[in-house]
Amino acid sequence: MIFNWPIRVYIEDTDVGGIVYYANYLKFMERARTEWLRTLGFSQEQLRHDNALFVVREVQIKYLKSARLDDELTISVALEQQRRVGFTLVQTVQRTINNKQEQLAVGRVDIVCMTQEGKPRSIPASIMQALQMPELPH
Amino acid sequence: MIFNWPIRVYIEDTDVGGIVYYANYLKFMERARTEWLRTLGFSQEQLRHDNALFVVREVQIKYLKSARLDDELTISVALEQQRRVGFTLVQTVQRTINNKQEQLAVGRVDIVCMTQEGKPRSIPASIMQALQMPELPH
Amino acid sequence: MIFNWPIRVYIEDTDVGGIVYYANYLKFMERARTEWLRTLGFSQEQLRHDNALFVVREVQIKYLKSARLDDELTISVALEQQRRVGFTLVQTVQRTINNKQEQLAVGRVDIVCMTQEGKPRSIPASIMQALQMPELPH
Amino acid sequence: MIFNWPIRVYIEDTDVGGIVYYANYLKFMERARTEWLRTLGFSQEQLRHDNALFVVREVQIKYLKSARLDDELTISVALEQQRRVGFTLVQTVQRTINNKQEQLAVGRVDIVCMTQEGKPRSIPASIMQALQMPELPH
Repeated sequence: MIFNWPIRVYIEDTDVGGIVYYANYLKFMERARTEWLRTLGFSQEQLRHDNALFVVREVQIKYLKSARLDDELTISVALEQQRRVGFTLVQTVQRTINNKQEQLAVGRVDIVCMTQEGKPRSIPASIMQALQMPELPH
Repeated sequence: MIFNWPIRVYIEDTDVGGIVYYANYLKFMERARTEWLRTLGFSQEQLRHDNALFVVREVQIKYLKSARLDDELTISVALEQQRRVGFTLVQTVQRTINNKQEQLAVGRVDIVCMTQEGKPRSIPASIMQALQMPELPH
Repeated sequence: MIFNWPIRVYIEDTDVGGIVYYANYLKFMERARTEWLRTLGFSQEQLRHDNALFVVREVQIKYLKSARLDDELTISVALEQQRRVGFTLVQTVQRTINNKQEQLAVGRVDIVCMTQEGKPRSIPASIMQALQMPELPH
Repeated sequence: MIFNWPIRVYIEDTDVGGIVYYANYLKFMERARTEWLRTLGFSQEQLRHDNALFVVREVQIKYLKSARLDDELTISVALEQQRRVGFTLVQTVQRTINNKQEQLAVGRVDIVCMTQEGKPRSIPASIMQALQMPELPH
């Protein structure tokens, strides 16, 4: 199942090259991840309260084409792999022009679940269920 | 007439104090201005093409309460004053909680119309009309 | 006494207009304030530990000329007014070109001292002294 | 040869988790790359003038430990591989504490040289020389 989130490009996102600054794709991807979790019933604030933070461990991103001011982008989130203490997502940035989708960037984001004290912990059972991931043995 | 634009607070907007970083309110306000112009029929890209850039000359902003992660904000835009080469807007940042609105920040933004070469110019007639502002004599 | 802090403009600071995005001047001003406090002997982390946060209450900023990529800027901090629970600073953004200073922006920043719980509190005596401000009666 | 660039962490760089927001490491890395090029004699503005833009094609970044407010970081740049139209850099983010270096993040950044029109082009000979890279045949 793929989750999609629409994002509009504003002046704040652009740079002197007339394109979206390369670090900002990571902001867009995080917004989509947050909304994906919200759709599953989990807010960032709630996760913080449950002492289960999703922390990015590794990002691999390929920039294929540049996003530009006023572009309407769609950021996707797909679960590629799950583990007891984390998961790997594949995320794309696409531009919609004349009802056609154009791929601008694709990334793989590795996430681990941690306590506020910075210790790895297993993903809360409720989230495991929401992701339709079977609970793994501890 | 007041234009309203909804904005969700993401991790990227927050700082170590657990609140939205003070400069980011200016990003939110610009997003709302851009959407206000879009609603009137003008995109940033089109304005750039017409060699009519809206440049911020002055900002006054009062921070009343802090926005936080996951907050649903509403950013307003209201035309306070018009001039041949610019206008002044009043913008607010409000939080919606339990169907109640709470004012977090209020700003006054002074904008001038300029060419790409940095010369002041009169606001395009089409925008004047869209704003229902009578065209002023040159 | 005026404190000065040098800042270089990077791609991240610019926007599609080829200039520094207007909200980023507030980032530059905060960096200068932080370094001003550090020079006086106070780090943000220490202030946080002392439960004395300096929170911006109001900003007034005039944009006179645009900063551009690669510019060498100087951000100034001058104490305009002190109060028991806060102070007002005047800050400028200047560009150095051929040993000449050009004023790009000038702002007035109103700051209050607060606890982490969000209550106003008097500025710590040690900071009062460092600022050579006489301690005011409670 | 490894180029090093010092960066201080400010409030703007942090997020609600009390750590540097993950996208901001890419900003730090770009600042270091820009200063590395400047040291070699090339400013971003000049590259733009020569119609030779260095565009990021791919980033791989591993987050090992979190940078925090007030941290003094060192961002490194090392040339891993060169090609006629681009190069690959390895960059690290390190924290200096008590004269000890701690690795916080390590990235591999793939860069191509492009014209403003978005066409790949060979790296200018002057930069090739500065990098002590032999000019490759076209």
